[in-house]
Amino acid sequence: MKYEDNFHSMLDDSGVFDEILREKESIGYYNLIYQDTKLFKDYAKSVSQNTIVVIGIGGSTLGASAIYDFLKHSKNLLKSLIFLETTDPLDIKAKLNFIDLDDTLFILISKSGTTVETISIFKYLHTLMNIDKNNCLIITDKDSKLNIYAKKNEIMTFEIPKNVGGRFSVFSSVGLVPLAIVGIDIDKLLSGAKNIHDSFFNKELYYERLLRKARFLVQYKYQFNINILFSYSSMLEGFNKWYIQLWGESLGKRDLDDVEQGLTPLGLIGPVDQHSFLQLIAEGRKDKTVTFLKVDDFQTDLSIPEITLEGLEELDYLNNIHFSELINLQADSTIEALSNIKRIPYDIIHMKTISEESIAKLMYEYELLTSICAKLLCINAYDQPGVEKGKIILKDKLKQSEIKER
Amino acid sequence: MKYEDNFHSMLDDSGVFDEILREKESIGYYNLIYQDTKLFKDYAKSVSQNTIVVIGIGGSTLGASAIYDFLKHSKNLLKSLIFLETTDPLDIKAKLNFIDLDDTLFILISKSGTTVETISIFKYLHTLMNIDKNNCLIITDKDSKLNIYAKKNEIMTFEIPKNVGGRFSVFSSVGLVPLAIVGIDIDKLLSGAKNIHDSFFNKELYYERLLRKARFLVQYKYQFNINILFSYSSMLEGFNKWYIQLWGESLGKRDLDDVEQGLTPLGLIGPVDQHSFLQLIAEGRKDKTVTFLKVDDFQTDLSIPEITLEGLEELDYLNNIHFSELINLQADSTIEALSNIKRIPYDIIHMKTISEESIAKLMYEYELLTSICAKLLCINAYDQPGVEKGKIILKDKLKQSEIKER
Repeated sequence: MKYEDNFHSMLDDSGVFDEILREKESIGYYNLIYQDTKLFKDYAKSVSQNTIVVIGIGGSTLGASAIYDFLKHSKNLLKSLIFLETTDPLDIKAKLNFIDLDDTLFILISKSGTTVETISIFKYLHTLMNIDKNNCLIITDKDSKLNIYAKKNEIMTFEIPKNVGGRFSVFSSVGLVPLAIVGIDIDKLLSGAKNIHDSFFNKELYYERLLRKARFLVQYKYQFNINILFSYSSMLEGFNKWYIQLWGESLGKRDLDDVEQGLTPLGLIGPVDQHSFLQLIAEGRKDKTVTFLKVDDFQTDLSIPEITLEGLEELDYLNNIHFSELINLQADSTIEALSNIKRIPYDIIHMKTISEESIAKLMYEYELLTSICAKLLCINAYDQPGVEKGKIILKDKLKQSEIKER
Repeated sequence: MKYEDNFHSMLDDSGVFDEILREKESIGYYNLIYQDTKLFKDYAKSVSQNTIVVIGIGGSTLGASAIYDFLKHSKNLLKSLIFLETTDPLDIKAKLNFIDLDDTLFILISKSGTTVETISIFKYLHTLMNIDKNNCLIITDKDSKLNIYAKKNEIMTFEIPKNVGGRFSVFSSVGLVPLAIVGIDIDKLLSGAKNIHDSFFNKELYYERLLRKARFLVQYKYQFNINILFSYSSMLEGFNKWYIQLWGESLGKRDLDDVEQGLTPLGLIGPVDQHSFLQLIAEGRKDKTVTFLKVDDFQTDLSIPEITLEGLEELDYLNNIHFSELINLQADSTIEALSNIKRIPYDIIHMKTISEESIAKLMYEYELLTSICAKLLCINAYDQPGVEKGKIILKDKLKQSEIKER
């Protein structure tokens, strides 16, 4: 992936690289690239159903959803993948109405095994059909209570490694199993991720790039507290959502000195959001960095025909332009316009094409960048203590509600 | 709509109300509630096609899309509405593959009439089918060149009033015509909007609420430069996008003293984003206000059955809970947890139910709030000078590209 930026921060690793090396011994996501995927692929081949429904939320779905969104229009995938993530009753109903339950494999994913949303939907499913080992797969922690349920019901399981957190789990069973089932080449995903891993840990291109970028973002965190990802393809909407979780939940923490840290992620889609958000970037307060994400080759020759519409002759300069050229020129024009305005730090990530390798490279790059920023901010990227209180309150409210009703 | 907040700003209208009253004489959106909708409804009745495709971008699509998204699962709509907004070739292909072209009405919406994305897609359509007065409708400015095209080809048109800008046009022909065609009651939309209009301009409930809220947001714009909309329903995702354009593009401006202003909008969906972004709100830097949006009644009794899953007995407190109750308790728990943390200003908007009135009330409320904030920031809410440079650069690049190819 080609890369450009207008940052001027110096390369200065301040021991961060050594800390990442040490962390790599205990934090699992770094080393998922070395996994043996044979069991995942064998299982995938055995699946006969044509619709795959993942029941999960947050880190259990966002990674696979990002990759599936990116590839689904380009690959000839034989099966479709649907995510049941929310407790919104109208959303649940609409999605389940749309599928053929008898031709569906349900994959229940929950690291803790007791995620309220996931178990609620799973329970509801029982009112519609019989759930058993023939139409259900469970992906969870080896010691979770959901694993007990699976064993009792002889439902096949895959394990989420203990040292791999939800939002860093896309290259574990959590992402790879559903993706393998619908026909995505998971070995190519891992080889893309390994490419970035090697470049970084061998102190090659990505070592310099990621340390410089992280340093810049952290150094100017008070001036630029918002980090925009401006993705020029509708197929990157899922990736934007994955980035938002990764960045927001990993970096929004109290640091070692109990000071609140955090960089706010924001996802945009070009060219649509040129007509929505660009004005604010250009003329609003200069509190944002922008990362442009471009796909160099959309692998399609869809183009604007050479026709003249009466009255609209002035737009004939659009004739014969390929849409992939148009969308990239829209990105370039936005970049050029913003680069003429001072105090908008930006970088550009060029993805070569729509492939397993390119999306995996991008995701592994962002995982590394997140880990490095966390080190520089003196926080733990891998926990989420701030959401526990809400969960306890919810449990209390639900129990009260239960008592009331009986 | 019920409303709560934890703000402490004083009510002090500082002449803002009088300025809004003056502005109301020249800015058209305020008075769209008085429109006669007969022509829109008559046209809607005459449409025989079952699929309605809107070609447009930004203000031409976001409003109708927000309302359609909100209502589509609850109303028994007879026709489906699809939006072609982007120049991403894979997105265009995927959407057009999915529809029956012979049973489709295409509605081309562009205020200027020369929007690059819109005309590019419209030209491409000509390679797939004949476009004529039987399958096409055009909504544009009376003096636009697209209107000339329409007249030459005898294609029916509706006008966008000159003094109604794109992002404030949802209650004009731009939003009402497509929505009327698919079976949404547009008179109820206008009556919902009028309800808020009257309350504000008669100095009743919304007068106090909106002036207080605007004053708080502007007063603390440096401390809290990010305004989150945390919507507890998947059906509000379209509304979030509409809000982001309205807020970002209206308020991101240089003020009368040439100082950059702007409040950054961010849209979240609960409970999904509790598993993504909540950690950052709770423990990250206190640079955000949060508006919670709740739907009190989802009008469905979908509920969690009274079953016990072996191993997961501890989750039996979920049994017999309605999903609409669950999602609202999730919102309440998040609000309670955040309210125990200092320096997170929030307010809660309760929407009664899924109806035309409730979404229209919400949208009109946000339009008024935007206008009031703009007054307090001393900026013009209705222009977007910061995006013009990019458009000029794009035109140059496209013309160069055209020369190269010939």
